[in-house]
Amino acid sequence: MPLEPHIIRSFVEACGQQDVLVNRSECWAYGYDNSKQHACPDLVVLPHQTGQIQECVQICRRYNIPLTTRGRGTNTTGATVPIHSGVILSTERMDRILEMDASNRNIQVEPGVLNASVQERASKHGLFWPPDPGSSDYCTIGGNLACNAAGPRAIKYGTCRENTLELCAVTGAGEMIRTGNATTKGVVGLDLTRLLVGSEGILAIITEARLKLSPIAERTDTIRATYQDTRSAIEAVVEILSQNSMPCALEFIDEGSLNLIRRQEKMRFDNCAKAMLIIEVDGLEQTVDADVEAILRAASNPGCINLHNASDSKQKTELWLARKVLSQALRSFAPDKINEDVVVPVSQLPTLLTELELLSKKFSIPVFSFGHAGNGNLHVNLLYNESDEREAVSARQCLSEIFDLVLRLNGTLSGEHGVGISKRDWVSKEIDPGALCLMQKIKQQFDPDQILNPGKSLPDIANTD
Amino acid sequence: MPLEPHIIRSFVEACGQQDVLVNRSECWAYGYDNSKQHACPDLVVLPHQTGQIQECVQICRRYNIPLTTRGRGTNTTGATVPIHSGVILSTERMDRILEMDASNRNIQVEPGVLNASVQERASKHGLFWPPDPGSSDYCTIGGNLACNAAGPRAIKYGTCRENTLELCAVTGAGEMIRTGNATTKGVVGLDLTRLLVGSEGILAIITEARLKLSPIAERTDTIRATYQDTRSAIEAVVEILSQNSMPCALEFIDEGSLNLIRRQEKMRFDNCAKAMLIIEVDGLEQTVDADVEAILRAASNPGCINLHNASDSKQKTELWLARKVLSQALRSFAPDKINEDVVVPVSQLPTLLTELELLSKKFSIPVFSFGHAGNGNLHVNLLYNESDEREAVSARQCLSEIFDLVLRLNGTLSGEHGVGISKRDWVSKEIDPGALCLMQKIKQQFDPDQILNPGKSLPDIANTD
Repeated sequence: MPLEPHIIRSFVEACGQQDVLVNRSECWAYGYDNSKQHACPDLVVLPHQTGQIQECVQICRRYNIPLTTRGRGTNTTGATVPIHSGVILSTERMDRILEMDASNRNIQVEPGVLNASVQERASKHGLFWPPDPGSSDYCTIGGNLACNAAGPRAIKYGTCRENTLELCAVTGAGEMIRTGNATTKGVVGLDLTRLLVGSEGILAIITEARLKLSPIAERTDTIRATYQDTRSAIEAVVEILSQNSMPCALEFIDEGSLNLIRRQEKMRFDNCAKAMLIIEVDGLEQTVDADVEAILRAASNPGCINLHNASDSKQKTELWLARKVLSQALRSFAPDKINEDVVVPVSQLPTLLTELELLSKKFSIPVFSFGHAGNGNLHVNLLYNESDEREAVSARQCLSEIFDLVLRLNGTLSGEHGVGISKRDWVSKEIDPGALCLMQKIKQQFDPDQILNPGKSLPDIANTD
Repeated sequence: MPLEPHIIRSFVEACGQQDVLVNRSECWAYGYDNSKQHACPDLVVLPHQTGQIQECVQICRRYNIPLTTRGRGTNTTGATVPIHSGVILSTERMDRILEMDASNRNIQVEPGVLNASVQERASKHGLFWPPDPGSSDYCTIGGNLACNAAGPRAIKYGTCRENTLELCAVTGAGEMIRTGNATTKGVVGLDLTRLLVGSEGILAIITEARLKLSPIAERTDTIRATYQDTRSAIEAVVEILSQNSMPCALEFIDEGSLNLIRRQEKMRFDNCAKAMLIIEVDGLEQTVDADVEAILRAASNPGCINLHNASDSKQKTELWLARKVLSQALRSFAPDKINEDVVVPVSQLPTLLTELELLSKKFSIPVFSFGHAGNGNLHVNLLYNESDEREAVSARQCLSEIFDLVLRLNGTLSGEHGVGISKRDWVSKEIDPGALCLMQKIKQQFDPDQILNPGKSLPDIANTD
């Protein structure tokens, strides 16, 4: 149902004609995200300032209109799809870097600034922001924070949660709040900063963020380790994590994924390799050798076929390319895929992978796994054809059993992608009723009229009672 | 007002006679903490199990009795002093290590386990838990988490917030909740773990915690750097933080404190030194040299008098002893002291220290500062005589201006000690009304009858409206 003219006028008065889209063809593009789901919003606002956001929230409250905040829509869970239509608030025009504070190693930005822009600006001072999702070239900081984005470097440097100092946000009540501090320590009051990070826009709209930066390492080595079986590769992961040198990436690629890479790329891997690790080590020019040596020692076991330290940047790029082409390769292998990002304690990875193989056979659904093994965080891909009804049903049943398996192994359903629409029905399997009820009550406090991103992240209150 | 006999009977029925203290002389000792404040509780319960805690909470709800949770009372802010009397719940008998999971680098413990016991157990697997408050030998994990304790290592390894994976807790409604995950990543639901960490027992009683462990470094070097003035020492701090090698401690000691150490200890410092840094560097046997070299380069400037790498463990112990005797030395210098732990952005440390000198002169109150300069976190000590009324008033006025100064410099009133009673009146100067109101509402959700640790951490609701 389109918005009534006087409501549209309110938004135009609040933001100006040029920052409001109502034409359906213009609005259409704001209904997608990388989950491939779509719902057309009734109106799109493109604010430049916090004050405009506050006014938009008040209008939405007044007329009970859903408001979904959106960066660049790179998330994979439908978190920015306006399933109850209403207003999309796109932060794309709030893209200013407000302060680059090199001496205190932080940068203050608006939510629409791209991850890549932060990296570029920080790099001029020898600094970087650790979260590095695959979409870093075109995803926004606001989106990163809303989803608690991570990526390969999280193993050493942490996720958004560990790399955010201070936030400004507008709550669902239209109130401006500041959380956290400009400093790296602080214990006054409750930690609302980490409550907002990962909350998928259901509590507040982030309007400013002060991000904690780290110094760029002088040197980074990239090691390719191949194994004759999965078990040996995972044993190496456990061994690497139990010694002193912390790698800055520790990625696992399974046999099926390796075969796909072999098919797509001209890269020559060891032909008999059934599992691969990509290990990165960073540090000072003079310290990396000793760290690499320690890690190679840990990575080496009877099942190891080859350990190769990529010596030049061409080799390094090639190696990461292999990891990066995977997503595309998977899609070309099957028209549809479910891409999950489950996490288990690292010691449970061998069990997880063995059981995944069994489930793949049981449901006749190819399952390919790769990802951030150092955090026990695997991207589990189920390949199927959505138009084949039996296959689609099998895929969903298989996924259901994967989730049960992960929870049985003391894991979590998502390490970095979040919940959005996709995993919402599963949340109450992971979180106990008491905690879930508190989360819903907190949501109620931040957003008394339940206008912010309805139908996402947390199940409806009724489900848990 | 003592509790009525039938209420006491309820506690005895819930916990057993041997786990309930009602005798005033026995209760008396549970009314103190390291803030030197005291209020005698009406009753002390010493539960062994979560179920007993749930029952105690229900009794307190039924009869509207304040319930204050206490570890070993090492905090300095009065956070465990039962100012509205009622019940003290001491976690001292919940002191089991539930699981040492070396392969996943974590340990699951009950809240009454001592910090030192965790370190001892973890060290058998080459691991440690980073938070290391000065009281680590006799403070509990529950207390550490409630206050988000830190210490010198926070600069490299983070505080409790960055080193806690999973919590079990009983809310003020008597409900058992589990927060977080056994894994190092997880984004399902809102982050209640970090909401509980640092909440000073006003939301829930922590009953179990899974702590994230780190590998013990092969080698640690300790450097003593002396400077001819404060400015040079702080310039070195900023310089150290802007290069690649991250020290695992970066402590500052000011001139007044150095003089106190000189008086107490037979340690020979450079006589003309007016500021000192203690810098620790850890890593692999083969990497520490390069890191130390980089840090010495950064620490060296025209105002630097001497850089000394303590080569043996005796020298190291001596150096840390100097830092540790300070607290005692300060007390012997003046009968009373206010010990604050303000934080400012590192680049503001010179301004903070200059202004502190001026305030010290203005109020004729000696001010000694030392602490975790790498986090911008200084322990500011105001020395005075409480029995001299004019001095006592001056000290409090001076403190008030120090807090104003810190907030003007974009800092925070507490880096690791917390709020408790001592800083409660100041909280609304730091946190904006909107955020504070949300914190109070969250408190209300966790603790609907406001029985948990009343009068602490957050100002009363009326104060902010």
